[in-house]
Amino acid sequence: MSQARKPIEYADASAEVRAVYDDIMATRKTDWINHFWKALANDPATLQRTWDSIKQIMAPGALDPLTKEMLYIAVSVSNQCPYCIASHTASARQKGMTDAMFHELMAVVGMANETNRLAAGYQVEIDEQYKTV
Amino acid sequence: MSQARKPIEYADASAEVRAVYDDIMATRKTDWINHFWKALANDPATLQRTWDSIKQIMAPGALDPLTKEMLYIAVSVSNQCPYCIASHTASARQKGMTDAMFHELMAVVGMANETNRLAAGYQVEIDEQYKTV
Amino acid sequence: MSQARKPIEYADASAEVRAVYDDIMATRKTDWINHFWKALANDPATLQRTWDSIKQIMAPGALDPLTKEMLYIAVSVSNQCPYCIASHTASARQKGMTDAMFHELMAVVGMANETNRLAAGYQVEIDEQYKTV
Amino acid sequence: MSQARKPIEYADASAEVRAVYDDIMATRKTDWINHFWKALANDPATLQRTWDSIKQIMAPGALDPLTKEMLYIAVSVSNQCPYCIASHTASARQKGMTDAMFHELMAVVGMANETNRLAAGYQVEIDEQYKTV
Amino acid sequence: MSQARKPIEYADASAEVRAVYDDIMATRKTDWINHFWKALANDPATLQRTWDSIKQIMAPGALDPLTKEMLYIAVSVSNQCPYCIASHTASARQKGMTDAMFHELMAVVGMANETNRLAAGYQVEIDEQYKTV
Amino acid sequence: MSQARKPIEYADASAEVRAVYDDIMATRKTDWINHFWKALANDPATLQRTWDSIKQIMAPGALDPLTKEMLYIAVSVSNQCPYCIASHTASARQKGMTDAMFHELMAVVGMANETNRLAAGYQVEIDEQYKTV
Repeated sequence: MSQARKPIEYADASAEVRAVYDDIMATRKTDWINHFWKALANDPATLQRTWDSIKQIMAPGALDPLTKEMLYIAVSVSNQCPYCIASHTASARQKGMTDAMFHELMAVVGMANETNRLAAGYQVEIDEQYKTV
Repeated sequence: MSQARKPIEYADASAEVRAVYDDIMATRKTDWINHFWKALANDPATLQRTWDSIKQIMAPGALDPLTKEMLYIAVSVSNQCPYCIASHTASARQKGMTDAMFHELMAVVGMANETNRLAAGYQVEIDEQYKTV
Repeated sequence: MSQARKPIEYADASAEVRAVYDDIMATRKTDWINHFWKALANDPATLQRTWDSIKQIMAPGALDPLTKEMLYIAVSVSNQCPYCIASHTASARQKGMTDAMFHELMAVVGMANETNRLAAGYQVEIDEQYKTV
Repeated sequence: MSQARKPIEYADASAEVRAVYDDIMATRKTDWINHFWKALANDPATLQRTWDSIKQIMAPGALDPLTKEMLYIAVSVSNQCPYCIASHTASARQKGMTDAMFHELMAVVGMANETNRLAAGYQVEIDEQYKTV
Repeated sequence: MSQARKPIEYADASAEVRAVYDDIMATRKTDWINHFWKALANDPATLQRTWDSIKQIMAPGALDPLTKEMLYIAVSVSNQCPYCIASHTASARQKGMTDAMFHELMAVVGMANETNRLAAGYQVEIDEQYKTV
Repeated sequence: MSQARKPIEYADASAEVRAVYDDIMATRKTDWINHFWKALANDPATLQRTWDSIKQIMAPGALDPLTKEMLYIAVSVSNQCPYCIASHTASARQKGMTDAMFHELMAVVGMANETNRLAAGYQVEIDEQYKTV
């Protein structure tokens, strides 16, 4: 399946793909592209759509970029996605996540996964207080 | 299985369980106990251990309590745990989560779940840059 | 989608489906069929295949039926499947699961879900000692 | 645990296991057995039951074999199962999955995983229109 | 959290939201909006981005819309998302999914979830034949 | 992130961490510490809390330690956690899990993951008989 998911290097990329790569590097203030985007580049429509979404979602807003990156790690760890854990942990470090923050993040994620199952296993009914929309 | 998971009300609780309930209410500055703890109260050892862990983990530290609550939501949403989503969304609101913060939280959690699968499906190799421990 | 997943009652079932229902009731020493099988009965091939597999797998062997039922609960809780949690918890009770056993089961399942994520989040390498096949 | 999960080669297999291997190769029109079956061969009952089920389920029917293989990939990617993603992606290619089909498959799987969490996180109520069985 | 996730009806929607609703109804040739979109409408940016992505991804291409809808169901079932299962099953029916197709879809999804765990539990190594990119 | 998750060897550990290591080795009657604990040792609070919980939960009780270890495997396999599968399979073997027990464990875990999805996909309603708390 050589054409379907082989990483596409900048030198081999179409103008369309290069434009996304350039925007990724400019937005992230970096000079390299990680494997995730090089794989998606096999499908330029998905590369473009995914990057546009990520760029919009991860931008500073009501939540700061570091908090967003830690939320990304929380999801990736719950889903057991090795690539995602490695890449977003690195990104969070670049955005200022300290060792202490990483440790607390892991503790919360671990605990949440535990109590999620206790709530399910005990078949806990949702309290009336939580039902108001 | 009436003894195993039926909610235990304060009036019916042992001194041991009441002590945990009291600590939960004092710590959270509230006057009621939600169903999760009332269910766990059927197993006082797990009630005590779980509360002790939650109290330690969710306390202010390198991460503030609201960030921790949003991480809890991120995990609960990824795991499709209705009780946990309802209860921790309510808790986050009480700790100051605004509508805008909730919306951005949802956007990040949704996106992370999407890219977790793109990374897996494209069988993306971890970049050397991410491997340094 | 009335034909695709509406519960099929014994009175309305084909001879083929009734034969499976009869075997379920005889094997389980019960006089009713739960909704799961009534739904699968819309697809007799899947009803038959699934029951044959369950009957073989859940029979006494190197593991006793109660242990197998608790393993079923452990999986169902981890997967957040409400129907499965309710039905297999009831089955385990019928096979002798005590309150104390249920409580310890929940504690293990909760803890395993927690440490599964700590192992992932810390990107723990598998020890050489565990690699021998 | 050498006896429990070490791959069993054809030359070392019992007549019972060889019969399954032969049927796998004949059905798939191939001359080799992949690791999955060689591992299951440690438990001939599970090897036989699993192959019988797979053979029945993956056969041409109301859905064609390629569609079924892509459904298999969709599940395997959602579950983060590296072996399953690799093996079923290869199988789908052999059955005619083009690059374009693979790309669209990935896009759908990614998106479904995203909206699954948006639906959960926003605690969306099921519309009446969807409740008719 | 009344402003954050309460369904927004067409009559109460902003022009921006109404434009998305109109496009959903025109694209789907229907005269109503399901709860999912009414919930997302609390965050117009996510409503717009999610609809744009869904519209692009679910359009006819190398895969037909019914196949895509069944892939959506496969993911939603694996993730235990009740809303998503209900809504996409209804959509697939509207696009022509027959009872027989639904039954085979369920059989494949169930089986894939089973073998995903057998592959993991037996710690099956990826065959060399599957590693060529 | 060298300080955050690099394995901490006994020789380099603080007195606080060594005390936990010593208790792990004494409790497990072994002379080495596996990578999981060496990683957690970067966060002594989580190391201590997690070990205290594990020690309490996995001790003999209404369920024997081998049954608990197999429940741990059932969860780890369902979650696709390679480290956890490898380490707890090894632990179960040390506690007496035979090949036959391992095979039946895998069969149950696989089947439970299958029927969990059939129950979800067929949108099976919980029987009244299962609702009594």
